[in-house]
Amino acid sequence: MFINGPNANLYGLAPGGVYGDQGFPAIKEACLAHATQLNVQLDFRQSNHEGIIIDWIQEARLMHQGLLINAAGLTYTSIAILDALLAFDGPIIECHMSNIWKREPFRHTSYISKAATGVVAGLGVDGYLLAISAINTILSKPVK
Amino acid sequence: MFINGPNANLYGLAPGGVYGDQGFPAIKEACLAHATQLNVQLDFRQSNHEGIIIDWIQEARLMHQGLLINAAGLTYTSIAILDALLAFDGPIIECHMSNIWKREPFRHTSYISKAATGVVAGLGVDGYLLAISAINTILSKPVK
Amino acid sequence: MFINGPNANLYGLAPGGVYGDQGFPAIKEACLAHATQLNVQLDFRQSNHEGIIIDWIQEARLMHQGLLINAAGLTYTSIAILDALLAFDGPIIECHMSNIWKREPFRHTSYISKAATGVVAGLGVDGYLLAISAINTILSKPVK
Amino acid sequence: MFINGPNANLYGLAPGGVYGDQGFPAIKEACLAHATQLNVQLDFRQSNHEGIIIDWIQEARLMHQGLLINAAGLTYTSIAILDALLAFDGPIIECHMSNIWKREPFRHTSYISKAATGVVAGLGVDGYLLAISAINTILSKPVK
Amino acid sequence: MFINGPNANLYGLAPGGVYGDQGFPAIKEACLAHATQLNVQLDFRQSNHEGIIIDWIQEARLMHQGLLINAAGLTYTSIAILDALLAFDGPIIECHMSNIWKREPFRHTSYISKAATGVVAGLGVDGYLLAISAINTILSKPVK
Amino acid sequence: MFINGPNANLYGLAPGGVYGDQGFPAIKEACLAHATQLNVQLDFRQSNHEGIIIDWIQEARLMHQGLLINAAGLTYTSIAILDALLAFDGPIIECHMSNIWKREPFRHTSYISKAATGVVAGLGVDGYLLAISAINTILSKPVK
Amino acid sequence: MFINGPNANLYGLAPGGVYGDQGFPAIKEACLAHATQLNVQLDFRQSNHEGIIIDWIQEARLMHQGLLINAAGLTYTSIAILDALLAFDGPIIECHMSNIWKREPFRHTSYISKAATGVVAGLGVDGYLLAISAINTILSKPVK
Amino acid sequence: MFINGPNANLYGLAPGGVYGDQGFPAIKEACLAHATQLNVQLDFRQSNHEGIIIDWIQEARLMHQGLLINAAGLTYTSIAILDALLAFDGPIIECHMSNIWKREPFRHTSYISKAATGVVAGLGVDGYLLAISAINTILSKPVK
Amino acid sequence: MFINGPNANLYGLAPGGVYGDQGFPAIKEACLAHATQLNVQLDFRQSNHEGIIIDWIQEARLMHQGLLINAAGLTYTSIAILDALLAFDGPIIECHMSNIWKREPFRHTSYISKAATGVVAGLGVDGYLLAISAINTILSKPVK
Amino acid sequence: MFINGPNANLYGLAPGGVYGDQGFPAIKEACLAHATQLNVQLDFRQSNHEGIIIDWIQEARLMHQGLLINAAGLTYTSIAILDALLAFDGPIIECHMSNIWKREPFRHTSYISKAATGVVAGLGVDGYLLAISAINTILSKPVK
Amino acid sequence: MFINGPNANLYGLAPGGVYGDQGFPAIKEACLAHATQLNVQLDFRQSNHEGIIIDWIQEARLMHQGLLINAAGLTYTSIAILDALLAFDGPIIECHMSNIWKREPFRHTSYISKAATGVVAGLGVDGYLLAISAINTILSKPVK
Amino acid sequence: MFINGPNANLYGLAPGGVYGDQGFPAIKEACLAHATQLNVQLDFRQSNHEGIIIDWIQEARLMHQGLLINAAGLTYTSIAILDALLAFDGPIIECHMSNIWKREPFRHTSYISKAATGVVAGLGVDGYLLAISAINTILSKPVK
Repeated sequence: MFINGPNANLYGLAPGGVYGDQGFPAIKEACLAHATQLNVQLDFRQSNHEGIIIDWIQEARLMHQGLLINAAGLTYTSIAILDALLAFDGPIIECHMSNIWKREPFRHTSYISKAATGVVAGLGVDGYLLAISAINTILSKPVK
Repeated sequence: MFINGPNANLYGLAPGGVYGDQGFPAIKEACLAHATQLNVQLDFRQSNHEGIIIDWIQEARLMHQGLLINAAGLTYTSIAILDALLAFDGPIIECHMSNIWKREPFRHTSYISKAATGVVAGLGVDGYLLAISAINTILSKPVK
Repeated sequence: MFINGPNANLYGLAPGGVYGDQGFPAIKEACLAHATQLNVQLDFRQSNHEGIIIDWIQEARLMHQGLLINAAGLTYTSIAILDALLAFDGPIIECHMSNIWKREPFRHTSYISKAATGVVAGLGVDGYLLAISAINTILSKPVK
Repeated sequence: MFINGPNANLYGLAPGGVYGDQGFPAIKEACLAHATQLNVQLDFRQSNHEGIIIDWIQEARLMHQGLLINAAGLTYTSIAILDALLAFDGPIIECHMSNIWKREPFRHTSYISKAATGVVAGLGVDGYLLAISAINTILSKPVK
Repeated sequence: MFINGPNANLYGLAPGGVYGDQGFPAIKEACLAHATQLNVQLDFRQSNHEGIIIDWIQEARLMHQGLLINAAGLTYTSIAILDALLAFDGPIIECHMSNIWKREPFRHTSYISKAATGVVAGLGVDGYLLAISAINTILSKPVK
Repeated sequence: MFINGPNANLYGLAPGGVYGDQGFPAIKEACLAHATQLNVQLDFRQSNHEGIIIDWIQEARLMHQGLLINAAGLTYTSIAILDALLAFDGPIIECHMSNIWKREPFRHTSYISKAATGVVAGLGVDGYLLAISAINTILSKPVK
Repeated sequence: MFINGPNANLYGLAPGGVYGDQGFPAIKEACLAHATQLNVQLDFRQSNHEGIIIDWIQEARLMHQGLLINAAGLTYTSIAILDALLAFDGPIIECHMSNIWKREPFRHTSYISKAATGVVAGLGVDGYLLAISAINTILSKPVK
Repeated sequence: MFINGPNANLYGLAPGGVYGDQGFPAIKEACLAHATQLNVQLDFRQSNHEGIIIDWIQEARLMHQGLLINAAGLTYTSIAILDALLAFDGPIIECHMSNIWKREPFRHTSYISKAATGVVAGLGVDGYLLAISAINTILSKPVK
Repeated sequence: MFINGPNANLYGLAPGGVYGDQGFPAIKEACLAHATQLNVQLDFRQSNHEGIIIDWIQEARLMHQGLLINAAGLTYTSIAILDALLAFDGPIIECHMSNIWKREPFRHTSYISKAATGVVAGLGVDGYLLAISAINTILSKPVK
Repeated sequence: MFINGPNANLYGLAPGGVYGDQGFPAIKEACLAHATQLNVQLDFRQSNHEGIIIDWIQEARLMHQGLLINAAGLTYTSIAILDALLAFDGPIIECHMSNIWKREPFRHTSYISKAATGVVAGLGVDGYLLAISAINTILSKPVK
Repeated sequence: MFINGPNANLYGLAPGGVYGDQGFPAIKEACLAHATQLNVQLDFRQSNHEGIIIDWIQEARLMHQGLLINAAGLTYTSIAILDALLAFDGPIIECHMSNIWKREPFRHTSYISKAATGVVAGLGVDGYLLAISAINTILSKPVK
Repeated sequence: MFINGPNANLYGLAPGGVYGDQGFPAIKEACLAHATQLNVQLDFRQSNHEGIIIDWIQEARLMHQGLLINAAGLTYTSIAILDALLAFDGPIIECHMSNIWKREPFRHTSYISKAATGVVAGLGVDGYLLAISAINTILSKPVK
């Protein structure tokens, strides 16, 4: 499962262009195509609601082996999402299209990182695809 | 669009009386009446859900020229709402019925201000009406 | 009303075992049984959504005399829930299954405490039952 | 009385243009015209001297019912002006042409707010006129 | 053993009334009565001396299975008491008559919590009785 | 010389009554009478202007043996007054009518204290008279 | 009652000479002589034990109208002494021989000040005598 | 060029095992093999000397199109390395074998991130290989 | 124009000798002589009044090409002077006779630096002369 | 004199084993034996009472040439003990059995260090013996 | 000796242009020419290695009367360089081409300043030349 | 191996005399003599280069059983040295000739302590000798 947080659906539309020039539907498509190529089953979702994201992570506990998450603005504030992730057994990769440490100071500290196996940030859509590859690689190995 | 955050629907009911003695329906009515008088089309809403408020701001991107927002308790904590506002092109006025800087320290720092054009606080319902006038004035000028 | 916050429904399932080894349905049952024994009418709920929790607190304003709340991960971040609680007239008891001050520093400061009458933490399910007893005792006395 | 602090007399001249493109005399004229229209007696002043501003606030105690103040650079540093305002009985509105919370961090904390009834910021000259309207509205009501 | 810290002997006498209106002897009596009812042997003490409190905790190591402690003003400052508690093997419940998180900031951080099994605060004498029940319940179970 | 800072001339008039109920002229008279009784020549002044206060301290360098100062709101912010005092050779007593450490946190740190021989605070007009006695006693001894 | 805290009995013996060159017995004698002259009954004590100081303050509740206290090193650390003082009804004057704000930063914040009526510091033995005069003056007036 | 900082040569040897169980020579070989496969020319180096790392980054300015860097312990302390990176024109990817935000707090803030295009952390050797792929992808596109 | 702030007129008189042993008139003379030698027209002033210094900076906007300023004690506290400097178009050199970073911590952060082209500190009167040379050099070049 | 603070008498008994596996009586014996071997007269004491420790340090002023102290939990909180040590003329060695900087952050800052000649920590009983040797060596040299 | 720190050799090449548009060899030449003109023997060096810079400062202890240093990125982090400078007897001038207080906050605090006689910053190559003049002037006077 | 950090080679030469009056060669000789006496093989080194110190610690991993280190100015800044020490299996003793907690605040926090077994500070050359004895004693026991 690949979970996208609030406003991710606007990627490519925002004027500043921090999130690249590709629109969200194109990003989704690229991810699904990459997953198909890797023979990975990918469930790619987006929500503006913290509660729904938590519901999805709990759903993933039962249904998925690994988790990719870009919690967007909730990355820096949601201990509730962190708690949901801490209850997830498999590998988790935190993704950010932009390099969050080059942005405002309130985007420099992520709660998600405390539960994530790894982090990929600042590499745009390429980073999303790499993260899918990475979780595939991890899941192909015996869990440590 | 005028968005009111969590618990705004209780204004006038809370015992401390920080939010004046007018109930929320009366505030809404006063705003709508003032808008009608200014010949402005006003969509006045309230929600306790951060996700819904973000949905509305995204909706406003397509439908409205300006935005008035009192995010209430979410003012000080929601980077996700800030991100939604940063993707809004028109003028935004942040409103608070009370003077938030005379209250508890955790109400002294607003994320909304970082995306707002201007702020009106501490003037009760009068402030709401002034904010409607102000956004009307701004929208009547050529956008800077 | 006894409100449980995000991920409380996973209690007993999480590997770390911070929340004891009893599953959430068992906890709920124990609480309801204890309430019945005390002749208290208990409405025991859980949600992962901050907005729904606020809706419930507002509902409790009209329907309930006292409130028990374990806001879980939202305890440390939600000023919006605090505001809803501040508008509640009766006694409020904040509950935590674990001793939150022995955990990560970001769990050491609760917004809920600023509105609560009292706090019971670290005593597991026993603490839940004690909190039900306590609110029953308070409601049996003339409100101060 | 409408008191303007240090360097306000340069508004419109500064290169950065944070304070709009209207010169200070034009701002003053607009305010006086608006006051006349509202049938309010307005005494519009500017000084670079903290001491003179305090003298004026003390003078206003005896002579004026309400006070509008943009203390400019002294907003963030002058407890002495705060003390003078705390001794003023009527309504006080703090005004800023720019949105001070979008500027340097040392402009994010105002001493004036601790004594002000309300705050209007970021709305340029329009905000000045709205503040005059607001204080007129407040003074027309029975003082709370 | 139930240890009360400095000035607890004045409870009910202090003018502010933070600690309820019951005098200390009445509180002690209520606790002893409740313990008798639970068939628990309770040694209820009070001292203004940090050193004596440490002596008592060391004494309890050899003589008691569980410990209840309201270290009062020493709660926030005494690492020496914390060290004594860390050397105690059985369950420890930290008690406070008042909700310490609603009081001055220097009462928001407890050293005692770092050694306590659980915390009961803000429930007055009722909280004391609940804590006695709680420790009785814990001691009746096999130690974890 | 006894220097009083901004708004001291309003003592006794302010509604909160932090500064006692004696008006400033009465305070001045009491000080001058006390000085006469001690056979001390006292020059009692007040200004709202930091610059004038600095001018006076420099004047005192040449004309006076000791200095009494209540810098009021400038106490907490004026390094320039501190510098003037550091260049003064004789004893300096810092006076405050109110107990500044019981007031807002921004009144807890005084720059004046870094240059003062001693401090008298919270004792109202009595404290002023005591400070005059104290400086008289110090000046009667051989300077240390 | 005039309570002196830890190590006050060494005044005049310490090499640095921060506390003047008069030994503690001489200070005590000077205070008692001054009290006799004012016709005040003074009980002048010293202890190195926080607990004993608290016992004495509690004793003073029943026996004395006013309290003078130099808690020495405990000034900056003892919330327990603060609590005892908060339960004392009459006037309290905090005394320090040295100007504590010219010393190490950890001596700049006093818990005693939060309960004291007034503070006299930096004036050596003269300050002690003035404090005795001051409390006598306060006690001669009707308590506020 | 792929630069490894101090102690990276011990990877796989350290007892804690934070850096996986593969020795440094094996990591180097895997990277070179992966680069060969991608037809990328990779210069893989390690040094314990901050100065040498700076020399290498300056060398890379003239010789290489992209830069991969794991500055290890210097990540959090070396502004000098940051300055060297800021003078590098091409893409830079910061790599960490471990998830640095799950480690000690002094490893949570990276100076390297301020100059990096993107960051890959916590994915062990897989992350190194992904970073090589990523920089290859970026360099294949027209530089932004 | 060369503006000197509060107490600069005491240089050479202060006992500590931080500001060298040359009196202020001698410093002024040396500066004027040096300016004459460089064929620069220098207006050398000193005031203890923040307001007057702001007036002078505003005057300099119209009359002078460059500005030299030692704001003395106001350096660390006056945002109002900073604002005046930000509205000045030409080069500004901040001067200090002493090395302010070797003095008290509250002298380590200058508001003036945020508007200054350059800073010369710790070099006594020589530094003043160098600053005059420097601004002359800058003004002789085409403004950047 | 070798002074041991609160709970030192439990060394070797505490479960965590931070303080080695030797009981306190054995430690005392080892120290006395080592002192005898060095021909040093050692007075080895332990108390849980801050006041008694201060009494002992004052006693040591008159009776002993050097002082060894492990203030245990009071190390980080007792300014009163620091003051007693500051009044002691001879060499002082601060001892800790454990390496306090590897423990909780509140054990990283010692008040004792500000008065101590030297510090020996983390070396268990060996460190105690070394400290005795060290103070013997210092006392054998001419005092600096 | 004039020591330049890491990356100074890139001055004039970096794209941002913070360090002017003159290349490092030109800067060196200008400095040497200026020194020759003043009849000063100048040894102008640059290194990216902290250790080499310390070696040079130690070498300068024996060989040079004065020291000019721009430690570049090491300015803000190297206590080791500070220690080397503290052991240097002659005058030291800290130089920066840019105004470091207008740059990132982590460049606002210099360790070098704690050992420097004076500081010249923000004046580009002119500042370097002035610093050479200044140290020449100081060395021509009798050392203070 | 006994590693000495930057500027240690100047001990005894620095004017302040913080490091005693014995020169570095004499210290080295004393250490070697003491080691010989204890029949310990001691490799005593000094470097101004962080990288070389790390190289040496890595060398010691293979060649030495224990490590003594005084990292001097790098103690407070080098995470890279800490990482090297964390990879060392045997006992490590951190040494400082001076009592670092009596010096500037930036010398109060050591990274070395986080990897060290124990710390000896403030005892000059005696402390060096004691540390050699201590590590000898530890290595003679079975490693814990």
